[in-house]
Amino acid sequence: MQNLIKKLVNKNDKKIIFCVLDGLGGLPKHGKTELEAANTPNLDKIADASSSGLHLPVARGITPGSGAAHLGLFGYDPLQYEIGRGVLEALGLGIDLGPNDLAIRGNFATVEYRDGNPVVTDRRAGRIPTEENKRIIEKLSSKIDSIEGVKAGFYPGMEHRFVLKLTFPERIPTGGDLINDTDPQETDKSPLIASGENKESEKVAVILNKFITKIAGVIKDEERANYTLLRGISVYPHLDSYEEAYGLKAGCIATYPMYRGVAKLVGMDVLEVKDNSIASEVETLKREIDNYDFIYFHVKKTDSYGEDGDFDAKAGVIEEFDALVPEIMSLKPDVFVVTGDHSTPSTMMAHSWHPVPIMISSAYPRLGKGSGFGEDTCNTGSLGIIKAIEIMPLLLAHADRLKKYGA
Amino acid sequence: MQNLIKKLVNKNDKKIIFCVLDGLGGLPKHGKTELEAANTPNLDKIADASSSGLHLPVARGITPGSGAAHLGLFGYDPLQYEIGRGVLEALGLGIDLGPNDLAIRGNFATVEYRDGNPVVTDRRAGRIPTEENKRIIEKLSSKIDSIEGVKAGFYPGMEHRFVLKLTFPERIPTGGDLINDTDPQETDKSPLIASGENKESEKVAVILNKFITKIAGVIKDEERANYTLLRGISVYPHLDSYEEAYGLKAGCIATYPMYRGVAKLVGMDVLEVKDNSIASEVETLKREIDNYDFIYFHVKKTDSYGEDGDFDAKAGVIEEFDALVPEIMSLKPDVFVVTGDHSTPSTMMAHSWHPVPIMISSAYPRLGKGSGFGEDTCNTGSLGIIKAIEIMPLLLAHADRLKKYGA
Repeated sequence: MQNLIKKLVNKNDKKIIFCVLDGLGGLPKHGKTELEAANTPNLDKIADASSSGLHLPVARGITPGSGAAHLGLFGYDPLQYEIGRGVLEALGLGIDLGPNDLAIRGNFATVEYRDGNPVVTDRRAGRIPTEENKRIIEKLSSKIDSIEGVKAGFYPGMEHRFVLKLTFPERIPTGGDLINDTDPQETDKSPLIASGENKESEKVAVILNKFITKIAGVIKDEERANYTLLRGISVYPHLDSYEEAYGLKAGCIATYPMYRGVAKLVGMDVLEVKDNSIASEVETLKREIDNYDFIYFHVKKTDSYGEDGDFDAKAGVIEEFDALVPEIMSLKPDVFVVTGDHSTPSTMMAHSWHPVPIMISSAYPRLGKGSGFGEDTCNTGSLGIIKAIEIMPLLLAHADRLKKYGA
Repeated sequence: MQNLIKKLVNKNDKKIIFCVLDGLGGLPKHGKTELEAANTPNLDKIADASSSGLHLPVARGITPGSGAAHLGLFGYDPLQYEIGRGVLEALGLGIDLGPNDLAIRGNFATVEYRDGNPVVTDRRAGRIPTEENKRIIEKLSSKIDSIEGVKAGFYPGMEHRFVLKLTFPERIPTGGDLINDTDPQETDKSPLIASGENKESEKVAVILNKFITKIAGVIKDEERANYTLLRGISVYPHLDSYEEAYGLKAGCIATYPMYRGVAKLVGMDVLEVKDNSIASEVETLKREIDNYDFIYFHVKKTDSYGEDGDFDAKAGVIEEFDALVPEIMSLKPDVFVVTGDHSTPSTMMAHSWHPVPIMISSAYPRLGKGSGFGEDTCNTGSLGIIKAIEIMPLLLAHADRLKKYGA
């Protein structure tokens, strides 16, 4: 489908603003979902003149992570393009990744040497404090630069977690990251040797084992964090950029590293936002809208409060967004979209598989039956239930950015 | 899917009348679409006792051409079977095509010979009058019959356009038409040599170049149209006939050549219609219904007026059709279907991607919420939003023409 879209792309100067309220979809409590309970006069009014419906992030019954859900929203099939754990962890820490980079999630661990062989006694090094982690990472950074032209970057995470980024002199070939985790998953076992499933990944694995040995040498005298176990060894997926896929110059307005990272993966410019407030994001939007065809505008806290089980606070974030909608609409986007990446019902305190409300405001709406913006109304909207990966073709169509298929 | 259907086909004597109002789907103006604004008491009454819904001609957001859209309606995936420009042009001129035929869209052009090489000075030969085109085509027809057993047919189009049909002694193998256009797209350049992407198409290209040289020899003394540029070199797609695919003896009632051509592609008999009026099409239907299991009944003007932006005239054609519906129903078809091939909202003056209303009248309806036949009602119809290629299996089912799958 993406190949077809690429052939049909028609460039023009129409602008699309794509607002993603993370975890927007909900479940009713006292008869109304968070979105339905929120007082949203601005969204309701726009919804009444929009095409609306629900979208399935991945497939029926599938609860997505935010990374997978965002790939879908951006039009890349999350079942085809899997983002590895190492890459996600790196994106989450705000680490830049390119096609030459191998991203690895590391855990500091404790080993004993028996007959010279390391044997894991604690897979998480007693969950060392983050400060201790940072100190060790600095030591590693100062002592280890590169092996055979492959440069190492060490980035501390929380407690025993860190990210190792290995930058190769050349693009890592497809399948070059088919390498096992070295975590034996149990104590009293030796860490596993990294090995590749094919010739290309075996070459990478050989280098990786050399880094493991070198790291062990540097930290062997640490009391707890004297070894590393590596997981989620993965390469940044080769995705067409928004420019290549859709002919769109795209900007990202998001405050959390993971979302900024996924946007960067698809070639969006990640725009500066003063602080974490939605109002600051709108400031950035106003400042930058003229420079872009497409703006991805992300609001995080709907999801956070959903996961906390705080129904009212989630509804409150939606109201906070609604109050800023007139400022967004004053920019006169040709297509204005509001949806979520997935549902996070506060009654479940977790992501869920439920389809997500979406409204598309443009010059070419077909209207539905209900009124206002909510799960119930979207369920009788004119779009019906669509797949997340169908959203981008629809937005391009609504912006007159797709040519006719066939004659 | 077509393979499954083929296995399940159950022949009986039930009749299906499949009415396609070209570009039927619309967008609201003053709250109602063309179909909703039209006064259609007969369709409304039947719709109230029918299964209804909307269909997606190709995919979400994709605006189809009529050829691609009709393939979908007929149950052939338009993304799998693309109809080449040459074939479409030939169908549009009412030229018969078979599996041995290569169809090519030709433009007469003006060249200068520099150092003996042709250089294009006008890619359209100054848009010569159609009469001049006809005279030159007659000259070519009288002077060029065949080369190496490949017969040539020349057919004039409008102004500088014509169709060249090359009939090979044998079926042209798949991929045999992977040949570049010879139009250099710019003046002051030489026409391109035709060359094939593979062994089979290279053989075809060699013959084609011989024809180009021979044509150039015949018309070299013409003042303007002294060369030809060839485009859209394509073979008729090998589609199962309706008889093979569905066990249906099918007839086509359509007045425009392109639709008659696509119907012929899928093995329908193209039936004679006295003039371009819907009433004459109904006369043909009455005369021929006993001879067929399935009748494809096409109305063109809904699309034409949609493209003209004439809301009222489009609604008027729908009313004209509605008035004839009782005559059609008096033939007591077992399944009576009304839909469009795509939407052509008169507010857009163009084809669009919006889903298309469909109603299926049979002995086995599930009813929807609304009343009458229109986009809104179809949006809450019992079928929901289906793909165009799902229509044919549904029609067969409603005609008791599909056996049970599995035990």
